Amino acid sequence: VPTLRDLGEIEVLRRLTADRSPAAGVALGPGDDAAVLDPSPGTELVATTDAFVEGAHYLPAWSAPERTGARLATANLSDLAAMAATPRWALLSIGARPESEVDALLALQRGAEDRLARFGAVVVGGNLTSVSGAEWASLTLLGEVPAGRYWTRSGARPGDLLAITGSPGRAGAGLALARRLEAGARSPEWQALLDAWLEPEPRLDLALDLASTGAVKAAMDVSDGVAQDLARLCEASGVGAEIATGEWPDDSELARASHSLGVPLEALRLGPSDDYELVLAVDPKRRAACEDVAARHGVALGFVGRFIEESGLSVRLAGGEVRALRPKGYDAFEGEG
Amino acid sequence: VPTLRDLGEIEVLRRLTADRSPAAGVALGPGDDAAVLDPSPGTELVATTDAFVEGAHYLPAWSAPERTGARLATANLSDLAAMAATPRWALLSIGARPESEVDALLALQRGAEDRLARFGAVVVGGNLTSVSGAEWASLTLLGEVPAGRYWTRSGARPGDLLAITGSPGRAGAGLALARRLEAGARSPEWQALLDAWLEPEPRLDLALDLASTGAVKAAMDVSDGVAQDLARLCEASGVGAEIATGEWPDDSELARASHSLGVPLEALRLGPSDDYELVLAVDPKRRAACEDVAARHGVALGFVGRFIEESGLSVRLAGGEVRALRPKGYDAFEGEG
Repeated sequence: VPTLRDLGEIEVLRRLTADRSPAAGVALGPGDDAAVLDPSPGTELVATTDAFVEGAHYLPAWSAPERTGARLATANLSDLAAMAATPRWALLSIGARPESEVDALLALQRGAEDRLARFGAVVVGGNLTSVSGAEWASLTLLGEVPAGRYWTRSGARPGDLLAITGSPGRAGAGLALARRLEAGARSPEWQALLDAWLEPEPRLDLALDLASTGAVKAAMDVSDGVAQDLARLCEASGVGAEIATGEWPDDSELARASHSLGVPLEALRLGPSDDYELVLAVDPKRRAACEDVAARHGVALGFVGRFIEESGLSVRLAGGEVRALRPKGYDAFEGEG
Repeated sequence: VPTLRDLGEIEVLRRLTADRSPAAGVALGPGDDAAVLDPSPGTELVATTDAFVEGAHYLPAWSAPERTGARLATANLSDLAAMAATPRWALLSIGARPESEVDALLALQRGAEDRLARFGAVVVGGNLTSVSGAEWASLTLLGEVPAGRYWTRSGARPGDLLAITGSPGRAGAGLALARRLEAGARSPEWQALLDAWLEPEPRLDLALDLASTGAVKAAMDVSDGVAQDLARLCEASGVGAEIATGEWPDDSELARASHSLGVPLEALRLGPSDDYELVLAVDPKRRAACEDVAARHGVALGFVGRFIEESGLSVRLAGGEVRALRPKGYDAFEGEG
């Protein structure tokens, strides 16, 4: 099984860029100093970048390279979903150890490419460099949106409904179970939550159809946890939000994890978790249109609160009591201890 | 002096994205899920990405963060020069240690931004993540070129002239002097070669004016060394090249380094070196137009050989003898030993 050092940079790059068929909107693909792309007339360009570091964003014991590549693509695709943009082109920058297997590198790229291809995007360039410590991969994704039709974080207004796709918290629960139970988490009982952590799907198709309803006034994806990401959306919009826990969709698997982990269900739902679900501000007059679209896609869309004038986040409990919520999400630079 | 851990991710991101003024072609800058950009009508989009890893691409003892950021920008700007594209937008993805100083991170970004701004580009987004080992920065740069007018590596034909900007090999000589002489390289005698290594300039303005002559049939930038990069251009074009050493511009500083290092001058000129100069294939009938443009920019443009039908590289020595040249450039995955 050859390593990167065995084959050398030129041969590895040759394998990474081999067998590429022409793609729509790509005048010049990998292999030159830069790629040349043909944007569609009447669109704006949407650009995002996200990086995964070995041991932090992915654990090789839990995620084969192909899965890691797919998840990195999902993190970026999810950003475009939050802008209601259609993915087109990607650049993949990788730092790999010389002693790593070339096949693992190819699998990571293939995982990213296959996931991107499912949503219409293609890798048009990249960079490969040598590292001595943790490996990493940084993906930049470009998409298109009809001019002026992109979503932002800043459009929520008091009175808008707070909607959330799927059941956030599941990814964080999967990670917590893997950390707590180690090999024991690999049981059928926890498979669905592990998959939520390791195999998240971007809500792109849903987002593009929701965009066509005109009902969505602000959007953001959940990459750090609902409370923290919702707080960011509220800050950008100059509003607050009240979450009604009674309206949250049932999730028996998450409830079971809450019990096993000894962590309150609310903490799992609102705390650190990279679910790649969407938080939306919805025009209350058009709620039904959104519900129709979500039903057509078979995706749960929970109307779990509302945006309010007063800044800050609060939670309305089932009994009617309202408590302030202090956002606590993932901080990359905070120690574990 | 606060570290990244002291301030936490949210505050560091706030500082990284503070004080941004609106920029042309940017509908939505940093702070949302993605940036929204407005491409110019009638242009194609050109995209490249390049990453620097601490200890490999930059040595903190030799390069302050601001300089490192500027050099990373230059590496990407140079790719756009090789495509005759105008820089517009960039995304900066950084892996930093929690114990690093926030000011160093801000300085690296400022160095990149200032260099990009000099050529008309602006940072519109990025990513920040925590690493435990070597730090790294990955920059993706987008530019524009009038539709169909980009340069490639594949347009060289037998009979075209081989032209090279500046005096490649100087950056590699600077690095070799720093490694060999350590602190002793910090003498006025070697300043210019150290600067060639640490403060390279992209040949963008020159490239854009050369493009308007229509004389350039293929182009590539020198990021691994002339021999290796020229071999790549030849392979992409399906031609060979013959370098005439007698035509190479004089460089007394490089000659002095050759003597001090005990490395033949030809090896410095043709071997591993990231000079960010340009290798060009020029229509022989339009050589004078290119010389005029280069003179106007005050940049040396050496006509140092020609492209030929037979594949491979060769060197024609001053006496007329022709020797085959085996390309040897930088290989990221090759050991030092």
